[in-house]
Amino acid sequence: MKYTVFLAVTFLLFSCNKNSGTNTSFVQDLTALEKAIEQATPGDEIVLANGSWKDVQIDFYGKGTASQPIILRAENPGKVFLEGKSSLYLGGEYLVVEGLYFRNGYSPRSSIVAFKIGQDSTAFHSRISNCVIEGFTKPSRLINDHWIEFYGQHNQLDHCYIAGKSNDGETLRVFHTGNQNTSNYHQIVNNYFGPRPRKGGPRAETIRIGDSKTHMTPGYVNVADNYFEACNGEVEVISDKTNFNTFRNNIFYKCEGSLVLRHGSFAKVDGNIFIGGDESGFYGGVRVINTGHWITNNYFYKINGEVFRSPLAMMNGIPKSQLNRYRQVTDVVVAHNTWVNCKSPWQVGVGQNIASADVLPEVEIRSAPPIRSIIANNLIYNDQADDSPVVNHSSIDGVLFRNNVLHNDGLTFTKYDALQLQDVKMTQINEWLFAPEEGLSGFLDSLYNGFDFDKIEQDLFGSSRADKNLVGAISQLAKAENYQLDQSRYGPSWFSTNRATAEPAVLTASSKAGELARLLDQAEAGDIIELTDKEYTLNGSLKIDKEIIIRSAGEDKAQLLFSGGESTPAFEMNPKGSLRLKNIRIKGKAGQLAFAPLKENMSSAYKLLVDDCEIEGFSYLLKASKGSFADSITVSNTLIQNCENGFVLAADEKGDYNAEMVSIDKCSFINVQRNVVHFYRGGYDESTIGGFLSITNNNFMNCGAKEESSVLLKTRGIINVFITGNTFRQNPVKLVALLWGEKNNHHRDNTMVNSGEIKVEEQQKLEILY
Amino acid sequence: MKYTVFLAVTFLLFSCNKNSGTNTSFVQDLTALEKAIEQATPGDEIVLANGSWKDVQIDFYGKGTASQPIILRAENPGKVFLEGKSSLYLGGEYLVVEGLYFRNGYSPRSSIVAFKIGQDSTAFHSRISNCVIEGFTKPSRLINDHWIEFYGQHNQLDHCYIAGKSNDGETLRVFHTGNQNTSNYHQIVNNYFGPRPRKGGPRAETIRIGDSKTHMTPGYVNVADNYFEACNGEVEVISDKTNFNTFRNNIFYKCEGSLVLRHGSFAKVDGNIFIGGDESGFYGGVRVINTGHWITNNYFYKINGEVFRSPLAMMNGIPKSQLNRYRQVTDVVVAHNTWVNCKSPWQVGVGQNIASADVLPEVEIRSAPPIRSIIANNLIYNDQADDSPVVNHSSIDGVLFRNNVLHNDGLTFTKYDALQLQDVKMTQINEWLFAPEEGLSGFLDSLYNGFDFDKIEQDLFGSSRADKNLVGAISQLAKAENYQLDQSRYGPSWFSTNRATAEPAVLTASSKAGELARLLDQAEAGDIIELTDKEYTLNGSLKIDKEIIIRSAGEDKAQLLFSGGESTPAFEMNPKGSLRLKNIRIKGKAGQLAFAPLKENMSSAYKLLVDDCEIEGFSYLLKASKGSFADSITVSNTLIQNCENGFVLAADEKGDYNAEMVSIDKCSFINVQRNVVHFYRGGYDESTIGGFLSITNNNFMNCGAKEESSVLLKTRGIINVFITGNTFRQNPVKLVALLWGEKNNHHRDNTMVNSGEIKVEEQQKLEILY
Repeated sequence: MKYTVFLAVTFLLFSCNKNSGTNTSFVQDLTALEKAIEQATPGDEIVLANGSWKDVQIDFYGKGTASQPIILRAENPGKVFLEGKSSLYLGGEYLVVEGLYFRNGYSPRSSIVAFKIGQDSTAFHSRISNCVIEGFTKPSRLINDHWIEFYGQHNQLDHCYIAGKSNDGETLRVFHTGNQNTSNYHQIVNNYFGPRPRKGGPRAETIRIGDSKTHMTPGYVNVADNYFEACNGEVEVISDKTNFNTFRNNIFYKCEGSLVLRHGSFAKVDGNIFIGGDESGFYGGVRVINTGHWITNNYFYKINGEVFRSPLAMMNGIPKSQLNRYRQVTDVVVAHNTWVNCKSPWQVGVGQNIASADVLPEVEIRSAPPIRSIIANNLIYNDQADDSPVVNHSSIDGVLFRNNVLHNDGLTFTKYDALQLQDVKMTQINEWLFAPEEGLSGFLDSLYNGFDFDKIEQDLFGSSRADKNLVGAISQLAKAENYQLDQSRYGPSWFSTNRATAEPAVLTASSKAGELARLLDQAEAGDIIELTDKEYTLNGSLKIDKEIIIRSAGEDKAQLLFSGGESTPAFEMNPKGSLRLKNIRIKGKAGQLAFAPLKENMSSAYKLLVDDCEIEGFSYLLKASKGSFADSITVSNTLIQNCENGFVLAADEKGDYNAEMVSIDKCSFINVQRNVVHFYRGGYDESTIGGFLSITNNNFMNCGAKEESSVLLKTRGIINVFITGNTFRQNPVKLVALLWGEKNNHHRDNTMVNSGEIKVEEQQKLEILY
Repeated sequence: MKYTVFLAVTFLLFSCNKNSGTNTSFVQDLTALEKAIEQATPGDEIVLANGSWKDVQIDFYGKGTASQPIILRAENPGKVFLEGKSSLYLGGEYLVVEGLYFRNGYSPRSSIVAFKIGQDSTAFHSRISNCVIEGFTKPSRLINDHWIEFYGQHNQLDHCYIAGKSNDGETLRVFHTGNQNTSNYHQIVNNYFGPRPRKGGPRAETIRIGDSKTHMTPGYVNVADNYFEACNGEVEVISDKTNFNTFRNNIFYKCEGSLVLRHGSFAKVDGNIFIGGDESGFYGGVRVINTGHWITNNYFYKINGEVFRSPLAMMNGIPKSQLNRYRQVTDVVVAHNTWVNCKSPWQVGVGQNIASADVLPEVEIRSAPPIRSIIANNLIYNDQADDSPVVNHSSIDGVLFRNNVLHNDGLTFTKYDALQLQDVKMTQINEWLFAPEEGLSGFLDSLYNGFDFDKIEQDLFGSSRADKNLVGAISQLAKAENYQLDQSRYGPSWFSTNRATAEPAVLTASSKAGELARLLDQAEAGDIIELTDKEYTLNGSLKIDKEIIIRSAGEDKAQLLFSGGESTPAFEMNPKGSLRLKNIRIKGKAGQLAFAPLKENMSSAYKLLVDDCEIEGFSYLLKASKGSFADSITVSNTLIQNCENGFVLAADEKGDYNAEMVSIDKCSFINVQRNVVHFYRGGYDESTIGGFLSITNNNFMNCGAKEESSVLLKTRGIINVFITGNTFRQNPVKLVALLWGEKNNHHRDNTMVNSGEIKVEEQQKLEILY
C-alpha cells in the first residue's frame, strides 16, 4: 500500500503541466477534484485520497478514448468512503470509476450513480468497477430513487457490491428513452447484488430494464455472471422491459422474486441457477410474458414460489393488450432446463382472471393463453412425488411439449401429455446441485430438434452438446462435478460479505431510573438484555434501532409500566430495529401505544417478535405510520387485553402496505374494542402479492364492541390470509372477517360463539393503480 | 431463343439418371413437374415448357444449397403462362423460380405465391425472380387473399411485375408469426408494383409487413429499388408493422396512399422519391407512428394529400395504446429531405381526436403528441407561397425543429419556429426533379448535428455528405443532374408496361333489333358507338365490360326504351366496365334499373359517366350490389325524373363501401320519390378515408315524398361530402342532408324552398370495426 501511495505522489509531481500525456492527479477535496476533472485529457488518472468524503456530488465529465480512458479511482480500493449526501454522475466517453465505497448517507439526487449529467451530457463507453454501495438509502421509504441509472450506450457496471436499498424505486434502472439510449449493449456483469429487504409494494426490483412505453426498443443489455442474494424487494428481482436482452450465468440465491420477462421480447435466459430452500415459499423462477424468449440451460433447486412466482410461469395475456399490461405469450422456447425438487414447476396461463370480468374492466382480463411455444428437452427431478408438476390455469394447447423427462419417485403424471416418466439416477455435487449420472439413456438422450435448437450449443457448465446431449441443463457430468461456487467472481476484489459475528452479550438491567434505556443505547446488535427486577417504570419510549432481545431474568414476568406522554409508544421502532420480547408484562394507559415505528423517515423495515407476554391498557397495541414497514410481526402465547385498538397496519395506500408477514398464534385477545387487526392494502396491483396474515389458534373474547365496520379482523386488499383454529366468543360484530376468495384467503376450523361469521367474497373491486 | 430450347432438350437427354450432379428436367405437364420436383437435388433445374399451364397448383419443395440452388424456370421467360386456378408454393431451402407469367385466372388458395407449403414446410433462402402476376384476382372482391405471402427467412422477390389486384387483401404480405419467420431479412427489390385500383375499404395495401400482434418482432425486411405506380388500393401503400425494416430508393409514382410506419418501429426510410401531381388530392407521403424511425434523403414532389395522407404526417398516439391502435411517436428523426411544391407538407399530431371523446371510448382518443423527435436539415421549396407549411394538430413542443430551410415565394412563416426563409435557386432536372444550384450557402449549408446524424453519409443520389453537405435530400448537383429514371431496373427484363394504344373506332348502330348489343360485344376497349336512329328498344341488358362510349350521332337525343325484365338494368356494369353516355334519353318502367353492377363476382371496379342525358321512369337509377365498387360515378347536365329511387350505393357494411368518387353536377332531379342519393359506409375505421360525394349546382324538385328517413341526400359514414350551389324546391323532407362536421363534410350557397334544412352534426357515433 505504501508503494502505491508513493507512486501516486510521484505521478502527482509530474502532472502539473497538463498535456496529452498520461497524468495522475491526486486530489484531497472536492475543489481539487472538480478542477482535475475539468482538465483531464485521454489517459489521465484522477486519484481520490483515502478517507471519508462527505457530501460530495461529483459530475465526472470527460472524453477519453478506447485505448486511453480517463480514470477516476480510489487511492486504495475500498478506502475512499463517499458519505452523507453524495452522488456520482458521468458524462462523456471512455470514463472509468474504480474502488469507491458509498455508505452512511444517501444521494440527494434521483440516483447515486448515473451515466448522465443533466439533460444533455450522456455517458458512452464508460465503466464503474470494483465499487460498493451499501445501505445508502433515502431517509424516507416513500421517496423514490434509483441507486444506479444507466443511460447512453456501451456502459458497464462490474465487480460491484450493491445492497440494502429499502426505499421506493428499483436498485438499478436502465433507461431506453431516446435514440442515444437504445441498442445500448450495456454490461452488468460480475456484480454481487446483496440483500434488498421486502418493500411491501411495487417499484422494488433489483434491476429494471426499460419501461412499458419503451417496450419496442432494442436493448441488448447483458446481465451476466452476477450473484443475487435475498433480493426480496418485490415479486420481480429483474424486470425486463426491452428487447434482445440477455441474462446468462447468474445465480439467484434465495430471492423472493423472479426474473420476469415483463414487457421485453426475445430475451435469452441461459445458464442461470436459481437456488431456493425450505425457509420461504416465495422463492421465484422465471416469469414469461411476450414473444420470442429462449429459456435454456437453467437450473432450479427448491424454488417453491406459487403462481406468479412459480419456477416457470408462462402467463396469460390480454387480447390487444394496452401497452402497460400483458401481451400474449408467443413463440417462446423453454429447452434443456432442469428443475430439482420444485413444487409444480411449470405453470401455464398464470394470471388468467376471466372470473374477475365483473369487477375488472375488459382491458384487464387475461384470457389469451400462450401460443406457438415449445417446452422441450427439459428434466424435472423430484425426490418426493409431485402430483402436479404441470399446472394449467387456462389452455395449454398452444404449447408444444416434446421429450421432457420426469423423475417423480415413481408417480406418473398423465393429466397432460407433457412429461415422460423415467427413473433418473442423479449425482449430488453440492448442497443444491444434482446431475444425471454417466451413461444414462432412455428418454434422457432422446431429443426434440426444433427450429434453431442447434444453436443451444453448450450445457449449463459449458460442455459441448454436439459431443454429447441430454435433456436438462447438464449434458455431461464431468464438468458439472468440478463446479465450485466461486464467490470471488462476484463483487469487488477487496470486499467480503463474510463478516465476523460476535457472540451476543447478556446485559442485566435493574429497575433503576434510566438504566434500561442506557443499556439499550450501549448494547451491540444481537445483545440480550435481561430484566432482573419485578417492575420498571418507563418515563419515555425505548428506542429500538438494532437487533435486541429483552426478556425477564427469571421465570416470572417483569412488568414494564409505561408513563410516557400521550401518543408515544413504549417501544419506538427505528429503521432496522429488531425487537424480541419474551416473558414480560407491559402496561400502558389510554392515549399511549405499546409499539410504533417513527412517524417519518422509516428508511428501513423493522421486526417485532413478542412471545409469552402480557400487554394491556394501551390505546394501540401497534400503530403503523405512513411509509413504515415491518418485515415481520410475530406474536405468540401472549395475552392482550383492555386495549382500545389492536394491530393497526393501515397507514399506506396505492399498493404500498405496512407489513409483510404478520403472524399471531396462540394468543388471547380480551376486550380490544376496535381494530383488533386492521391490515390494509389499497388498490389493485397484482405485481405486489403480499401481505401475509396468519391468525391461528387464538382466543378472541369481548372484542370489537366499538368497531364501526363491525368486522373484527379487517384484511381488505391483503393477498394471503389464513384464519384457522381460533375461538371467537362474545364478540359483538357482524363479521369476524370478510375474505377475498379469488386470492389466497382461507379459513378453517374456527369456533364461533356469538361472534358473527366469516364471509368470503370471491371477487373484490378495488381501484386500479396503473 | 432456339438455342435455349436446344440446350434445354440437350440437358433433358442427359438427365434421366438422377444423381447429385446438375440435371435439367424439361417438363410439359403437372405430373412430370411434380415428379421432377420430387427427385430434384442441389443444382438441378426444372424447366417448364412454353405455353399455357392451366389449373396448376404447384408445391415446389426441395433442398438446394447456397452454391447449388434448385431452379424452377420458364423455358423462355414470359412464355409460360399460369392460368385458371393456379398457384405456386415453396418449401425447403435455396429454391429459385424464374420467368413465370400468372394471368387469366386466380388462385383458389389463400395466395398465388407463398414461401410456405402447408403448416410445416417453410421456405428459406429462396427467390422468385423475373415473374409477372397480372390481374390474377379473385372473382369476388369480398373474398380475401394475398397474392404473395412471405414466410421463413432470407427469401427474395425481385424483378417482378405485380398489378391489378382488386379484391380484399394486401397484394404482398410478410408474416412474422413464429421464430422461423422473424429477423427474416427478406428482400423485396427491383419490382414494379403496377396499378392497384381503389378498393373502398381497408386491407388493400400493396405491401404489408407483419401485423399489430407481431409489432415487437424484428423484421429486417428490405424494400428497396421498387417502382410503385398508382397503388391506390387504400390509404396505405405500404404498411410497416414490424421493426428494423428498410425502405430505400423506391419510387412512388402517383400513388393515392402513403408509406405508413404503422405498428413497426426503427424503420429506415431513405432515398425514396414520391411523385404526385395535380390530378388527385390523395397522393400520399410518409405517415409516422411509433418509435425510432429515421426518415432521410427522401424527395417529395406535388404530394397533395391532406392529414393522414399528408407528405409528412406525424401522428398523435393514444396513451397506453392497445396494441392494435396508435402508440405515441417518440425518438423519430426526419432529416435531409426535400419537399417541392407540396401543400402543407409537415403535419404534426395528425389524428388528434380529443373532440370525439363523447362518441368514442377512451382507448380511442389520440391525445399524446410526438415527443423526443427531431425535424432538421430539411428543405421545403414552393414555387407559389404556402401559408401553412407546418400544420399543428395537437402540440409540436415535443419536436425539435433545427436548420430547416423554406423557399416560399418570399412569404415568411413565423407561426412556429420551424423554418428559416431563404431564397433558394433550383435547377430543374426533369418534370419533377429540382435541385439547388451549385454554390448556394446561407442557411442552406448551416447544418444541425444531432446524435447519429453522421451516419447520414450520402445524399439521395449517393453523393458523399462528408465531402459537401446541404440541407435537403440533394447535397451535390452534379450527380443529381445525371439522374435518369431507368424503367429497366424495375420488373422483369422481358416485360414492358408500355403498350401500344390503338386509335378508337367509331361504330354506328341503327335501331335494328340486337344491333347495338352486337356492336357492343364486338367493340374494342376505347371504341365509340354512335346511335344514328331516333328510338331504340332494348329487350335485354347491355353488358358493359370494357371502356366504351355511347352517344347520339346528331344533336338530338336518341331514345333508348328499355323493355327488359323486372329487376334487370338497362346497362349491366361488369368488372372493369367503363361507360360514358352522352346526349341520350333513356326510358324505363317501374321494377327496372337504369344502371347496376353484377349481383356477384364484381371482381373489379366499374366507371360510369353520364353527360347531357335524360333518364326517367325507372325504379332505380343506380343500385349497387354487395361487393360491387365504382371507381367513379360522374353525372352532369342530366335530367332525372319520375323515378322511384335515385343513386343507391349502400349494399356494403363494415368499412367497405360501393363507390369512391361520386359527382353530380348541373342536373335536375324531379319527382324522385325516395333515396335520391343514398351513399353509405358502415362502421368507424379511419384507415379508409372515403368515399367522396360532390353534389353541385343541381335542381331538386318534388323529390323525397316517400323517403322514410325524411332525409333527401343520405350520406352516413361518408368522409368527404360537398353540397354547394344547389336549389331545393318543394321537396317534402325534414332534412336535405345530415352532415358529419368532424369529417370533411361541407355545404355552401344552397337555396332551399319548402325543402327542410341541412344539418351538421359535429360528432357521429359509429360502430368501431377493429
